[in-house]
Amino acid sequence: MTIHDVSDVLNNIRVVMVNTTHPGNIGSAARAMKTMGLSQLVLVKPKIFPSEEADWLASGAVDILQQARVVASLEEAIADCGLILGASARQRRIPWPVIDGRQCGELAVREASHHPVALVFGREAMGLRNEELTQCHYHVAIPGNPEYSVLNVAMAIQLLCYEVRTHWLLQSAVAEDTAQSMPIVARAWDEPLATHQDMQNFQAHFVRVLERLEVIDSKNPRQILVRVKRLLARVRPDKTELNFLRGVLTAVEDKGKLSGAK
Amino acid sequence: MTIHDVSDVLNNIRVVMVNTTHPGNIGSAARAMKTMGLSQLVLVKPKIFPSEEADWLASGAVDILQQARVVASLEEAIADCGLILGASARQRRIPWPVIDGRQCGELAVREASHHPVALVFGREAMGLRNEELTQCHYHVAIPGNPEYSVLNVAMAIQLLCYEVRTHWLLQSAVAEDTAQSMPIVARAWDEPLATHQDMQNFQAHFVRVLERLEVIDSKNPRQILVRVKRLLARVRPDKTELNFLRGVLTAVEDKGKLSGAK
Repeated sequence: MTIHDVSDVLNNIRVVMVNTTHPGNIGSAARAMKTMGLSQLVLVKPKIFPSEEADWLASGAVDILQQARVVASLEEAIADCGLILGASARQRRIPWPVIDGRQCGELAVREASHHPVALVFGREAMGLRNEELTQCHYHVAIPGNPEYSVLNVAMAIQLLCYEVRTHWLLQSAVAEDTAQSMPIVARAWDEPLATHQDMQNFQAHFVRVLERLEVIDSKNPRQILVRVKRLLARVRPDKTELNFLRGVLTAVEDKGKLSGAK
Repeated sequence: MTIHDVSDVLNNIRVVMVNTTHPGNIGSAARAMKTMGLSQLVLVKPKIFPSEEADWLASGAVDILQQARVVASLEEAIADCGLILGASARQRRIPWPVIDGRQCGELAVREASHHPVALVFGREAMGLRNEELTQCHYHVAIPGNPEYSVLNVAMAIQLLCYEVRTHWLLQSAVAEDTAQSMPIVARAWDEPLATHQDMQNFQAHFVRVLERLEVIDSKNPRQILVRVKRLLARVRPDKTELNFLRGVLTAVEDKGKLSGAK
């Protein structure tokens, strides 16, 4: 199977929670998934499910809990998957191929157009057992504080779903060949930026006012002028902002009777 | 101030939670911070703190709750900061410079060796208010599902702390590689940046002058004031530049005989 519609990729990445003890974590996980556009949740022998606490913490993501599949074993949860990634905080006795969160997101998105992908998360107290970890293609280690690296399971799900979404957006942008950059930074400003010529005119006006205010010495303005130019270069005002600033300068001249006079 | 020990960088990045309603979120946030090596938590008027629920959810990060600073206003929380980043899910009426999670991590780490950096998070139900957002240099938008983008606040804190740690690890690796100055912080400025408090003072002075110049109507300044704040947020002047600009305002008042008079 190859998915051609990029929007189906996220539906082909499932979150598998193994033997979850606290129902609140299941609810929080559902919310975390939905915020990142994932929807397929599989619960392996949860201690309590369904539950009011899970529903409450899921907030606007109760639909994901309602569609969640409850199964009796990890095997059942991942049987149809082509890529299985297991979250693992600890280094295990037998080293396994380990990837980080970024690589997890990239790999999951890349392969989810070809086959179902599983992100597997273990118990609150002890994570995944060795025999479960050996069923994974890669272990995912989120680089945490060596002195305290125990992420809450729903937090870990949030992080990896975030990495999945980030890479999915990147891939979508490439596929659609529209945006050069991430959609989120492409947010439009509400006004066109001032042109270089606008800025030159403003700068001349500003310097004229500064001289008349005797803030700078017109005979020896060099150092402060460089700083003013640097400041203005950083502002990059839009046209409305620049008009406003021009208005301020004109008001200073008028009120202070500075025009022409020294 | 310039921090030379790379391990101090994380201690110079604080998490600010504004008006948090549920104590459990404060506890979860503390745990999220500690897993990523952050320790400075500031609570602006939390509804309930301290609390058993927060301690329970903090798990092994109760020390962060014990050291947390409780303050009465956002201003107090960020007064000494040189970079303020506000988490914002919604697009606001007046666009602000917006960065994503990756950029947030990179920027925070780069600047935290020079001055304190604040990551600001709003209320569970409604996030940050507009007047709080206008105090931020950048808004941070985590690219979420357009149909349901409301991350739990502790989850958002986990994500941004994760991005901070990831970039910090990158920087540490670079620092070890070169054994010299860290290229990533090479954007050295010749003067310390103005603090938030400096900027607040300047802004108040600027607005006072604008009113006396009758450029803005003191009875109805709202829209233009937001634009002025946005402009100032983008400038990010250093202390010398800000002193110069203060001097300009004072000169306008003196020359124009504006002080006191209307």
